[in-house]
Amino acid sequence: MRYTMFKRALIGKPLKTSELGEQRLGVLKALAILSSDALSSVAYGPEQVLIVLSTIGLIAFWYSIPIGIGVLILLTALILSYRQIIFAYPHGGGAYIVSKSNLGKNTGLVAGGSLLVDYILTVAVSVSAGTDAITSAFPQLHPFNVVIASVLVILITILNLRGVTESASVLAYPVYLFVLAVVILIVVGIWQVATGHIPAESHTPIGTVVPGISLFLLLRAFSSGCSALTGVEAVSNAVPNFKEPEAKNAVNTLIMMGIILAILFSGIMFLAYYLGIAPKGEETVLSQMAAKIFGRNFLYYFVQGTTALILVLAANTGFSAFPMLAVNLASDKYLPRMFLNRGDRLGYSNGIITLSITSILLIIVFGGNTEQLIPLYAVGVFIPFTLSQTGMIIKWMKEKPAGWVFKLTINLIGALITLTVVIIFFATKFSQVWFVLIFLPIIVFVCHRIKRHYDAVGEQLRIMSSEAPLKFEGNVVIVPVAGITKVVENSLHYANLIGDTVIAVYVAFDRESEKKMEEKWAEWKPDVRLVTLYSAYRSLLRPVARFIDLAEEKAAENNFTISVLIPQFITKRRWHDFLHNQSSLLLRLYLIYQKNVIVTTVPYRLKK
Amino acid sequence: MRYTMFKRALIGKPLKTSELGEQRLGVLKALAILSSDALSSVAYGPEQVLIVLSTIGLIAFWYSIPIGIGVLILLTALILSYRQIIFAYPHGGGAYIVSKSNLGKNTGLVAGGSLLVDYILTVAVSVSAGTDAITSAFPQLHPFNVVIASVLVILITILNLRGVTESASVLAYPVYLFVLAVVILIVVGIWQVATGHIPAESHTPIGTVVPGISLFLLLRAFSSGCSALTGVEAVSNAVPNFKEPEAKNAVNTLIMMGIILAILFSGIMFLAYYLGIAPKGEETVLSQMAAKIFGRNFLYYFVQGTTALILVLAANTGFSAFPMLAVNLASDKYLPRMFLNRGDRLGYSNGIITLSITSILLIIVFGGNTEQLIPLYAVGVFIPFTLSQTGMIIKWMKEKPAGWVFKLTINLIGALITLTVVIIFFATKFSQVWFVLIFLPIIVFVCHRIKRHYDAVGEQLRIMSSEAPLKFEGNVVIVPVAGITKVVENSLHYANLIGDTVIAVYVAFDRESEKKMEEKWAEWKPDVRLVTLYSAYRSLLRPVARFIDLAEEKAAENNFTISVLIPQFITKRRWHDFLHNQSSLLLRLYLIYQKNVIVTTVPYRLKK
Repeated sequence: MRYTMFKRALIGKPLKTSELGEQRLGVLKALAILSSDALSSVAYGPEQVLIVLSTIGLIAFWYSIPIGIGVLILLTALILSYRQIIFAYPHGGGAYIVSKSNLGKNTGLVAGGSLLVDYILTVAVSVSAGTDAITSAFPQLHPFNVVIASVLVILITILNLRGVTESASVLAYPVYLFVLAVVILIVVGIWQVATGHIPAESHTPIGTVVPGISLFLLLRAFSSGCSALTGVEAVSNAVPNFKEPEAKNAVNTLIMMGIILAILFSGIMFLAYYLGIAPKGEETVLSQMAAKIFGRNFLYYFVQGTTALILVLAANTGFSAFPMLAVNLASDKYLPRMFLNRGDRLGYSNGIITLSITSILLIIVFGGNTEQLIPLYAVGVFIPFTLSQTGMIIKWMKEKPAGWVFKLTINLIGALITLTVVIIFFATKFSQVWFVLIFLPIIVFVCHRIKRHYDAVGEQLRIMSSEAPLKFEGNVVIVPVAGITKVVENSLHYANLIGDTVIAVYVAFDRESEKKMEEKWAEWKPDVRLVTLYSAYRSLLRPVARFIDLAEEKAAENNFTISVLIPQFITKRRWHDFLHNQSSLLLRLYLIYQKNVIVTTVPYRLKK
Repeated sequence: MRYTMFKRALIGKPLKTSELGEQRLGVLKALAILSSDALSSVAYGPEQVLIVLSTIGLIAFWYSIPIGIGVLILLTALILSYRQIIFAYPHGGGAYIVSKSNLGKNTGLVAGGSLLVDYILTVAVSVSAGTDAITSAFPQLHPFNVVIASVLVILITILNLRGVTESASVLAYPVYLFVLAVVILIVVGIWQVATGHIPAESHTPIGTVVPGISLFLLLRAFSSGCSALTGVEAVSNAVPNFKEPEAKNAVNTLIMMGIILAILFSGIMFLAYYLGIAPKGEETVLSQMAAKIFGRNFLYYFVQGTTALILVLAANTGFSAFPMLAVNLASDKYLPRMFLNRGDRLGYSNGIITLSITSILLIIVFGGNTEQLIPLYAVGVFIPFTLSQTGMIIKWMKEKPAGWVFKLTINLIGALITLTVVIIFFATKFSQVWFVLIFLPIIVFVCHRIKRHYDAVGEQLRIMSSEAPLKFEGNVVIVPVAGITKVVENSLHYANLIGDTVIAVYVAFDRESEKKMEEKWAEWKPDVRLVTLYSAYRSLLRPVARFIDLAEEKAAENNFTISVLIPQFITKRRWHDFLHNQSSLLLRLYLIYQKNVIVTTVPYRLKK
């Protein structure tokens, strides 16, 4: 019961299934929890472009403007296509559902699998980035990076277990504050540009000839800029979480997110170019920009603080989208059924907890240095982007609804651009993304095996009237005993109640204790048969197992079934468990899995 | 069965209890596995002294000679006292047994508890140090420090699970190679000094007046040097692992270890002083010394390589001593009974595995930076040192055997020096060792609680003839069902075999499925009573629990007992388990722990 109280304190009191509607999201709250990933990427996306360009020199920075426009075009295409996807598939599932229904189940699994892995990467990468920001401010905490990152993941997990509306309420502030901070930065920056505060010499004019520039490098820079678009798909996966009318609200959220993202991204891109900011290892582009525009005053720290916060909270998008996607895959039997259960607060707790554990493992394995995963994570988004656009093209061609040519054109443009981005990723960053080519086939394979297993089980469980059911005529009860105690007395009494034959079994590790037990037993329970087994290898399991094999042969002759009675201490305090039950637990697991016997646990409650 | 094969491949085939004698250690092998901790500390002990002295300057380095002599005196006192302890307590246990029998159980627990924690620290600290040495050589591995250190701990764990003689055979080479390497270094170094290769100006003469030196600083340097003595007590804990005559072999091992340690320590101390080597952040004193004496040739790398190896293997001393100490505490009921079981290879596997898990956790929590734990670890050794010496004093005073005054004098000197070291530690490094004052009382408290629990259980289990045993007259069997399947059919058949009343229970999450189930059931098994329960909170456990409460009241009226039958899928492949059993597992645990009912698991074997 103490566990229940603890759980309630942590995640709140359980909600009735009928309260589901109240847990739905309005546009403003949805924007807060579903856009944190996409919006946070403006904190590093523009910088990624400049890092690639800086390999040529300051003179190449003007290319960030056409590259930025390219990213904006891609963003527009994505928003428009996802708008169509949401209306066409109002039950959510995004890339998985769209790809599956139009391109076949394997394609669906590729899309769904890559997104699932991607959300795990999102959580690990964004929380590690946020932790770095924190420990940069307090260097004495640096050795505890892994612990801090794990604790942050656990906090976000608890927030999500408390339910979707509650996490939205908590998260709305930091997200909107970040947007506010960056908007102020952009407005003041443009004002300074317009009033001539900033000399035009700080940047090279657009169109300057750049020696040494190559298409390869520009494409690489473009693909780095595309990492700012990860997270755009999250809304389409979470449509069922919206208030009615779900699709309409989701589309409004998507469009608002797109507009905000476009404003922040182009503002930062433009100012970075105009102010001539070059990426430095020790200070982010955003920080340099804020320092140049505001000076190091309160507004500067406001931008820095909200940026650190949104980097951590970007993880939350993963927590909203992963469980919904897992539900879609699980209801098609491609993932364990447990992902379908709603927890106390009506969230899909198993999905939330799975995401939490796997991302913490990633953080531990990479010792908190997860930056190397960023390209992997970007490609993991653009594959499903491409597949879902392609799926929509097929859909329009098949169904041909009113205005389908226009709709098809939008998705066609989307598909072409995202496919190009995927190809660019593989061409320019193969050493960092090849791993996708290994894990995607593995995921597809595992999903198929899971489905095959569930199908086989369903088949086996079906009751066919033709088959005769089992009919046993009696029950042999075997009671392993460790000595002569009250527990044994209780167990023997119950054994007599349910069994036709009762046999007590004692395993001795030396000859002396074997003899002693036989003598004491003969005195105590002369009417119950005792079998003593000598174990030269100090194993409890093997002698008992061998005895059960013998007993089974005999029982089969009489058409009897065999039950094994295992007493178990129920301790008064939970930690006492650690002091008992190891052997009875092992014996139980061994018998259940290795022997075809029924195992009965007879609890013995300790009063102290 | 595949698990068994895997286990055999990993740790070897099981050994019979009667083969225990063959697993005992001779002096040379014992020296290899029990001295690695003590010997490895010469790799950093002298350096620690110089680091403290270097806060004054090169001029103060001559003090390392008197400090080194002080450490040698302490070492002699420790070896002589432990020699007496081993003869007096040939069954091992060292500080714990000695303190307990002479100073009372709480003092014994303080000594034993601090050593237990200390062995965990030894493993974490030494493996982290070895990992640092490896990743210094291969910097691209640096981000994986935690993973590498954990893998090393796991490898040492496997070695120890394979048995004590096998680990001794594997470990003997690196330990003796390290000794050889350092001896060559010292001999060549002294030869160079003697032949005048090294100018006398590289050091300040002994006795030079040093401005700014303080007693506090010298004591701090001395206590740092004492860290070279950690690990000396390991032999006394492991006496029962020796070949007969155990005590004599153990004492010979101890003395050999003491002599080797003294030679290595004083040689390094002297050469560091004579060559005027100052500690540098990026290069160890030993590495500088080897470079100066040999130049950077093969011998230099031989010294460096064996040093890295022995730092990792120092962990092995913990693996030899921790399980033995845990056995001593567990046989006094101060630790869980499971520490008394010998594994397949006759080692105390539970102790080995516990040590492995806790030290890996420490490595993860500290992100592989465990240097900060070194002072904590040194003080954790000197507390039991002091207590065991004091215990011996009391023993000699009580028993007064032949020559007791001499024996007492030895232990008295030992006690005074070690006590002084403890006081110096607290006086000069309080900020790093205060944690001991918190965790020692906690350990003592927990040990007492464990013993109290075991005593209480023993009391409760005793069969007193006066008490009337339980007598039930019948059995009500409750079968939770999830649908109409073969599994349910099997379970109902068994229920009828063992029960006088059978009730099937179905939990519905919505009204529709409730109605549907009732209709289908009436058609399928009209003769078995079905109770349907509606669960508004999607909980399986709570409605079933409430129903059992009701049933219990009724059963009590007729003096019937209640059994709950839970079907469990036994999947054909182990990983399929992940796809099932979550609810039946939870239900079983809940009923066993929260309700006073007998729980029977009916296995249903899936064929695919």
